[in-house]
Amino acid sequence: MDAQRQSMLRKFQKELNAGTVSLVLLAVLERSPEPMYGYEIAKGMSWGMGAGVPVKHGTLYPVLRSMEGNGLLSSRVEPSVSGPPRKYYSITDHGRAVLSDWRTAWACTRDFVDATLEGDGG
Amino acid sequence: MDAQRQSMLRKFQKELNAGTVSLVLLAVLERSPEPMYGYEIAKGMSWGMGAGVPVKHGTLYPVLRSMEGNGLLSSRVEPSVSGPPRKYYSITDHGRAVLSDWRTAWACTRDFVDATLEGDGG
Repeated sequence: MDAQRQSMLRKFQKELNAGTVSLVLLAVLERSPEPMYGYEIAKGMSWGMGAGVPVKHGTLYPVLRSMEGNGLLSSRVEPSVSGPPRKYYSITDHGRAVLSDWRTAWACTRDFVDATLEGDGG
Repeated sequence: MDAQRQSMLRKFQKELNAGTVSLVLLAVLERSPEPMYGYEIAKGMSWGMGAGVPVKHGTLYPVLRSMEGNGLLSSRVEPSVSGPPRKYYSITDHGRAVLSDWRTAWACTRDFVDATLEGDGG
């Protein structure tokens, strides 16, 4: 793949991730029986968002903070034996309601994109 | 759905569309046997991108121009009997190569998101 195709692919993947990272993050926290801290959440996500644009841990923290600001997550800080205190995040009831809306929107957009790519949509 | 959920949903859908509109647009043009003008392309897309955030025709034109600037599309202007001249877009060979890369990236991200939502991923 030449450099220009590579650059277009990175741009595309970045835009795709911008929409999906928050969805995946909320789903991971909904499923977790325990509050999770940033690094734990990032670990589970970093392999999956693909195409040479891994989700860098540093990009998750602003998303977590913004979601907390919007009331989708709550957090508490706990001391850690091995380093600085950790901020543990849980999904709120409001976050669960928003996740449910987002799941529906995701399924709708996904099906439309797939139909178009297969030549049935549009 | 309360106003805050509605607002979160619109934000999410907008971010999702930012990544997918260019993919869908390129796929629509690849499939078309004839060059298409902006309004024709928009018509086929506007119903699908869902959740109260339709793809406004005005948002497509900058995407078309940027894709032409990146060599993914070529265009020619033709007079129209019913109004101002129309700009017809075709996909270039480079655009086909980029679309092929984007299809792969899309499938990878889609499967990862779906797996996470179903509780198998992450």
